[in-house]
Amino acid sequence: MTKLTEAATGVYVIAPTPFHDDGALDTASIDRMVDFYLSAGADGLTIMGMMGEAEKLATPEAEAVIASVMKAVAGRVPVIVGVSAPGFAAMQALARSAMDAGAAGVMVAPPSTLRLDARIRDYFLSAAAVLGPDTPFVLQDFPLATGVQIASEVILDVVAQAPTCVMLKHEDWPGLGKISALRKASDAGARRISILCGNGGMFLPEEIARGADGAMTGFAFPEMLVGVCRHMAAGDAGRARDLFDAYLPMARYESQPGLGLAIRKYVLAERGIIGGAALRKPGARLSPADIAEIELLLARQHQRLAALT
Amino acid sequence: MTKLTEAATGVYVIAPTPFHDDGALDTASIDRMVDFYLSAGADGLTIMGMMGEAEKLATPEAEAVIASVMKAVAGRVPVIVGVSAPGFAAMQALARSAMDAGAAGVMVAPPSTLRLDARIRDYFLSAAAVLGPDTPFVLQDFPLATGVQIASEVILDVVAQAPTCVMLKHEDWPGLGKISALRKASDAGARRISILCGNGGMFLPEEIARGADGAMTGFAFPEMLVGVCRHMAAGDAGRARDLFDAYLPMARYESQPGLGLAIRKYVLAERGIIGGAALRKPGARLSPADIAEIELLLARQHQRLAALT
Amino acid sequence: MTKLTEAATGVYVIAPTPFHDDGALDTASIDRMVDFYLSAGADGLTIMGMMGEAEKLATPEAEAVIASVMKAVAGRVPVIVGVSAPGFAAMQALARSAMDAGAAGVMVAPPSTLRLDARIRDYFLSAAAVLGPDTPFVLQDFPLATGVQIASEVILDVVAQAPTCVMLKHEDWPGLGKISALRKASDAGARRISILCGNGGMFLPEEIARGADGAMTGFAFPEMLVGVCRHMAAGDAGRARDLFDAYLPMARYESQPGLGLAIRKYVLAERGIIGGAALRKPGARLSPADIAEIELLLARQHQRLAALT
Amino acid sequence: MTKLTEAATGVYVIAPTPFHDDGALDTASIDRMVDFYLSAGADGLTIMGMMGEAEKLATPEAEAVIASVMKAVAGRVPVIVGVSAPGFAAMQALARSAMDAGAAGVMVAPPSTLRLDARIRDYFLSAAAVLGPDTPFVLQDFPLATGVQIASEVILDVVAQAPTCVMLKHEDWPGLGKISALRKASDAGARRISILCGNGGMFLPEEIARGADGAMTGFAFPEMLVGVCRHMAAGDAGRARDLFDAYLPMARYESQPGLGLAIRKYVLAERGIIGGAALRKPGARLSPADIAEIELLLARQHQRLAALT
Repeated sequence: MTKLTEAATGVYVIAPTPFHDDGALDTASIDRMVDFYLSAGADGLTIMGMMGEAEKLATPEAEAVIASVMKAVAGRVPVIVGVSAPGFAAMQALARSAMDAGAAGVMVAPPSTLRLDARIRDYFLSAAAVLGPDTPFVLQDFPLATGVQIASEVILDVVAQAPTCVMLKHEDWPGLGKISALRKASDAGARRISILCGNGGMFLPEEIARGADGAMTGFAFPEMLVGVCRHMAAGDAGRARDLFDAYLPMARYESQPGLGLAIRKYVLAERGIIGGAALRKPGARLSPADIAEIELLLARQHQRLAALT
Repeated sequence: MTKLTEAATGVYVIAPTPFHDDGALDTASIDRMVDFYLSAGADGLTIMGMMGEAEKLATPEAEAVIASVMKAVAGRVPVIVGVSAPGFAAMQALARSAMDAGAAGVMVAPPSTLRLDARIRDYFLSAAAVLGPDTPFVLQDFPLATGVQIASEVILDVVAQAPTCVMLKHEDWPGLGKISALRKASDAGARRISILCGNGGMFLPEEIARGADGAMTGFAFPEMLVGVCRHMAAGDAGRARDLFDAYLPMARYESQPGLGLAIRKYVLAERGIIGGAALRKPGARLSPADIAEIELLLARQHQRLAALT
Repeated sequence: MTKLTEAATGVYVIAPTPFHDDGALDTASIDRMVDFYLSAGADGLTIMGMMGEAEKLATPEAEAVIASVMKAVAGRVPVIVGVSAPGFAAMQALARSAMDAGAAGVMVAPPSTLRLDARIRDYFLSAAAVLGPDTPFVLQDFPLATGVQIASEVILDVVAQAPTCVMLKHEDWPGLGKISALRKASDAGARRISILCGNGGMFLPEEIARGADGAMTGFAFPEMLVGVCRHMAAGDAGRARDLFDAYLPMARYESQPGLGLAIRKYVLAERGIIGGAALRKPGARLSPADIAEIELLLARQHQRLAALT
Repeated sequence: MTKLTEAATGVYVIAPTPFHDDGALDTASIDRMVDFYLSAGADGLTIMGMMGEAEKLATPEAEAVIASVMKAVAGRVPVIVGVSAPGFAAMQALARSAMDAGAAGVMVAPPSTLRLDARIRDYFLSAAAVLGPDTPFVLQDFPLATGVQIASEVILDVVAQAPTCVMLKHEDWPGLGKISALRKASDAGARRISILCGNGGMFLPEEIARGADGAMTGFAFPEMLVGVCRHMAAGDAGRARDLFDAYLPMARYESQPGLGLAIRKYVLAERGIIGGAALRKPGARLSPADIAEIELLLARQHQRLAALT
């Protein structure tokens, strides 16, 4: 399998983990889901992230999901596996298992109690050492979820000292200025790593205009993410924004903290991409009012997309 | 002056505090700003909130802003004054001063260290006692900013025991289900208070559909908030959403934590509503890239609004 | 193996996990350590807690530690195993493995993001369901470490609805009033569960006087914890406090957050109870100044204990 | 009045604010309290700190307390006034008022939302600019209360760039290594500022041995703080620790977060130093069980002190 490098671009979809209504893993849906994402134009997949309900899986379940995804992907695109863990021994075990299964790289978020620039830097440098020279990793910067703010200087220090840090999953908020600052630093000689952005795609046109290489997030319509990236790459910012705007009411609705994943899975299930919308407990459940709102947004989105072409 | 009641509806604009570039208060802008908000259809104003940079004002400055706003409003609409304070003595002093100046009511957010249902309930009941029977108050529920999550049951207890709690400024996230729960409770006999929603208006159509009475927030285009509320009240949800969608790319851009107020003030200044875009220190400053993005969004919004009519 | 019940009393020592200097598990030290704790009068052991560096162990390592401790204990006292996990599937797997290995019960702390009385209650009731009717569990209440404050009413609800909740590891701060409140509730008819207290033993005389059944903590001199409990049980509070006071300067020194475990392990190693003082990374390391202070405190403690008899 | 300088040493007592049972200010107690502290050997006083319930005072009340303390002190020792505020305008107003009233300097804690080394540095440098060249200030480093961790490097940067930063109120936990690091830096050429330590005096002997210049805290027996500082200064560490150990059971009891100030005021009232033990609402109230424990500790402390001499 090709390893992840600084040259990665495009859309790495954060894939959910499908469950049956009783909470059992729905591995049968994985093939269909992977095929859908790849046919929608995904350049890569990221699994075992926060939106993959990774923390709700027992170790053998996580291994089963990784194996199923790898089999379904069959080397067509790189797969990144989240290996954030409360300790380095568990992180190392997860990473070894993922790389052995064929992952292109792993993703690491900081523990929520981490503070002080020097300690955050040390954490990622220690993680790099623990992962070893053959495991490229993505530094995940998502303060809203982790509680840890990471200074641009700290990211640049990690990039300078850890050659295996090849990508930033960028999800700081506000973060457009951070992309500009990091790109200015690489223009001035710092190693240029890949920057893929999260935030459910809610700032994707601006992020790419600032120098990001694409998106790593999980909106229920990955074709929007792909389209925006491609139109922007083709220099057609207007068309990118027209497409973006058409999906924005739904992207906004899906951005609700606490409820977002339930909305995403509902839409994916309705589109036939996964077998059912269930989250494993503890997880939000949609009310009839939520569902009515989604259906209304889908109908309006459908109309607006039709008007675009 | 008429006091705030449970019957309040519509749009209460969260007004910013205008500053000169050197950080001095720009009271001259206040008249113009107030006239603009009222001509845009605001049903009320809220000042000294988080987005009013209240915490950056010395007491005499705060009093000057309150007096200027009251004079400019001249009784045309109710004015709510934020009186959140680390202690009850300061809260009481602020509230007295505000009510004496002609405020219709005050707004109270919980201190960030507050935890446990019972203590949160006690806090608001103590605040009600400190404010006294003649000062209607708004319970501000904004966990993303305060760090304090408030259960629906706690709000209902406060409503049951404190007759002066007449309004909820709703900004929980996700919060649509909370509106439904509170309305279900008032249908079942709980006193029905006014619910005005924040979140920069990003969920306004859904919030009103769930039973909210309007918006209390500060988007740079209050005419969107007013239009959505009026179309929804008139039963024309489609037109409300068309209008909402046209402004959504900008509302989303303005929703960036840390940068949002700078964006709002920039647009208000560009529209000629306030004299300048300056925030008092410490406050974000827009970069040329930020400004270029805003201008692009404004141009697209202009086009789209033109297409609507 | 006998299961843990509400009748548990005395001292359940929180055992550290011994490591070699290079970070490898030092299972050879486990026999010696267990024998020491039992000869010091421990009524039980708790492993895989926060002070056991459990989060730094890979799963097979954790299983090896559990197996070694069980073998060394050989049924002489009950062993409680920490099974806190970010998700219920992992918690269930850990608990099954622990109970199969001979644990008397398990211990559960809430995830740090949990808020609202109702959600905290639901969390522990769900945990009880996941653990099943044959796995007694300890509710760990340690806000300083978890960030989650738990109301007495919530604990009483869990006790009322989950018969397998047989013990509270009490470490709220201030918490003496909470012990009194819980004991008042059991006097009034609530099921009386065991309350063992943490806080490094720093409030043990008062905790027992308020109705706690003993200590579950990990001071480097468990003989102090045992002595205080026994003297209190024998009605000799004066002697209990004399003993307590003699150890207090060291207990205070060991209570330093961030450094405490390194101090405890240093003393245990110096006493010959574990092979070395190393913490696995990331973990604090003592400076020469730290060590000099410890040695001074040990010398003074030795003198003072000699004067007691 | 002499201004505060880097040469400050000894004990700066954090003075509580006396209230009547109905919550009214008890200014009559202030004279007596000040005289007591000075006769106990205090080298300075600090008012309007966290333990002074400053946040519960309205502005005119705060001014009344400051005036009363200044009048009572009558220039005999320096007085430091806490001026932490959510914004710089309020901080400036408070500082001017305090300096005009005769304060020797002011104390500044960071706002709880501050993160990132660079922003914390900027905050204190901005505060220094706002306070002006004639107002010496104390940098308050108390992460347990403020939630803000401050790196030693940041403190040294502030010291290097802001000549008016003349003192550190040190209350990081663990913090002994931080004192050593700061002293090592001043030995290597950094400007040496005064370091006075908090933590209720619980680590005073070690703090002084590490290079601290004394204590700034508020234990109900300031004579312990004074005695420990004097014996340490005289080179008699043994005697310092004997004294410290005698008071430690009570100091520990007073260290309970949430309840500590109520305990301190109870003891001060019982000693006749303030008129009553009341805290202003919201504030903890002691139960009969709390009071019985205090009385027992006082009796034992009395005996032990008698045995010392």
